[in-house]
Amino acid sequence: MLESPLIATLEAGGTKMVAGFAKGPGEILRRKRVKTEGVEKTLAQLVDFFRVGSQDLGLPEALAVGAFGPVNLDRGSKDYGTIGQTPKEGWRGVNLLAPLRELLGGLPSVVETDVNAALFGELRWGAARGLKSAAYLTVGTGIGGALFMNGDLIRGVGHSEMGHMRVRRDEVGGGAKFTGVCPFHGDCLEGMASGSALRARWGRAAEELGTEHVAWEIEADYLAQACVNILMIAPPERIILGGGVMAQDWLFPLIRTRLKELLGGYLAYDELGGDLGSFVLPPLLGEDAGLLGCVALGQALLKG
Amino acid sequence: MLESPLIATLEAGGTKMVAGFAKGPGEILRRKRVKTEGVEKTLAQLVDFFRVGSQDLGLPEALAVGAFGPVNLDRGSKDYGTIGQTPKEGWRGVNLLAPLRELLGGLPSVVETDVNAALFGELRWGAARGLKSAAYLTVGTGIGGALFMNGDLIRGVGHSEMGHMRVRRDEVGGGAKFTGVCPFHGDCLEGMASGSALRARWGRAAEELGTEHVAWEIEADYLAQACVNILMIAPPERIILGGGVMAQDWLFPLIRTRLKELLGGYLAYDELGGDLGSFVLPPLLGEDAGLLGCVALGQALLKG
Repeated sequence: MLESPLIATLEAGGTKMVAGFAKGPGEILRRKRVKTEGVEKTLAQLVDFFRVGSQDLGLPEALAVGAFGPVNLDRGSKDYGTIGQTPKEGWRGVNLLAPLRELLGGLPSVVETDVNAALFGELRWGAARGLKSAAYLTVGTGIGGALFMNGDLIRGVGHSEMGHMRVRRDEVGGGAKFTGVCPFHGDCLEGMASGSALRARWGRAAEELGTEHVAWEIEADYLAQACVNILMIAPPERIILGGGVMAQDWLFPLIRTRLKELLGGYLAYDELGGDLGSFVLPPLLGEDAGLLGCVALGQALLKG
Repeated sequence: MLESPLIATLEAGGTKMVAGFAKGPGEILRRKRVKTEGVEKTLAQLVDFFRVGSQDLGLPEALAVGAFGPVNLDRGSKDYGTIGQTPKEGWRGVNLLAPLRELLGGLPSVVETDVNAALFGELRWGAARGLKSAAYLTVGTGIGGALFMNGDLIRGVGHSEMGHMRVRRDEVGGGAKFTGVCPFHGDCLEGMASGSALRARWGRAAEELGTEHVAWEIEADYLAQACVNILMIAPPERIILGGGVMAQDWLFPLIRTRLKELLGGYLAYDELGGDLGSFVLPPLLGEDAGLLGCVALGQALLKG
């Protein structure tokens, strides 16, 4: 078997960036974590890491970036890889790809949203391995999503976002009074079910609520509604739920039960039989998800 | 320019079937309408039409069927083209493709859902002409949908359906009391906003309600919610709304206005600027949509 190509990876998050050189799981040759601070300082640290790394390990064959959004993903655009209207002001208009690409000798390069990258990694080595379609919903401070269908990440007028879909408000425990935290919509999915929403509504972070809190049944209902809408619009073979809120793993059976109820016997796919234990799943790649997602993206790029 | 290939088409609906020989708009060489009754009688009429037609016009180069669902769309399956668990009992297990394919000399053939076929026609010659992505929602007795993305009709674990997504109930004019007509979910999109739902809720058919009825603002809200969810999950460049209910064309501006409100400035795509007059549109192909959709499918099949 041929050796897998070496990929330079950058997981570019809003609070931290993780740069790496890797060939796959178990073959992460080097990595460095950098705080996302001022643009110049941050980029200088990344440039330093990639320069020294490629001297030590050899030039990588591709560069892959999974970036916080919004980021220009239009390969035909001269602004491909440029950060858009982010609240992180200094980063607006910064191109994440160009300086690193140049440093590394103009190699093939690709940028995706961070969630798209994570889903790509799960499709290659993780919870959606071998499937032809899958959705990824990440429930953290905000809610983001990704959708893979017909052999590629969804690209319409933009990429899948998921977070701002419309959900039916719960009426439990003052639900009618909690109007949600989304600055655009108030009570969309992100406004009602993100980590920020949980904190605003219950006064504590998700990980401090405890297993018995009424919050979880409500949370499961919102996330099950999201799964229903995904299934009705673009039905994937599997839905992966990740992000900080989902670390409360008792949520999974609650979501599966509620999803089953909401589907009401509609949709006769084999994948929706039983207790949905192999339909709604956590990601498998854990802390390495972002980095390995970039490796998968880079290797797919080389394959064409 | 080469002449377009002749396609044998079958629009197989639950109440009527329309068979045809055509090459494109303005080149519908022959067509026949047949009531969907007993399987044998109906198929015999179709076989007769296709036999005589191919004697007179020459053998078509491909056969394309747009079928009422559920229908097996898995090309790898031996049951490709077979009707599934339809309420029309006699039709369960009937293969629409096989007998016609054989009659016509084993030519290349394709089957899609009726809505997929209609969307395909609109992408080729109609309201979504030249676009790389589009959604089609048909609002009639029931609600069905189709989604084209990344250059193909969406195929995950199944095709897009749209009708049973979850919507937020209105509270206007007794909305809280109207529990919806969907046998599976009660108050899903189809349960609240289909033609059947309008009739059940207001006691009259859509076309008898008149322009000033409160029903329309409510209907526009439901359909705008559907558009929001489509945009958040798999954002198309355009959404086409067709079907009998949408013949009430004053609905379009109401839906656009409500969609704009619901988006709340989120999603900065150029396509969502202005009054959405070129984002939410009726189909263009009118009565010929199903037939021309099949022609487009057949010609795409020949192109590979």
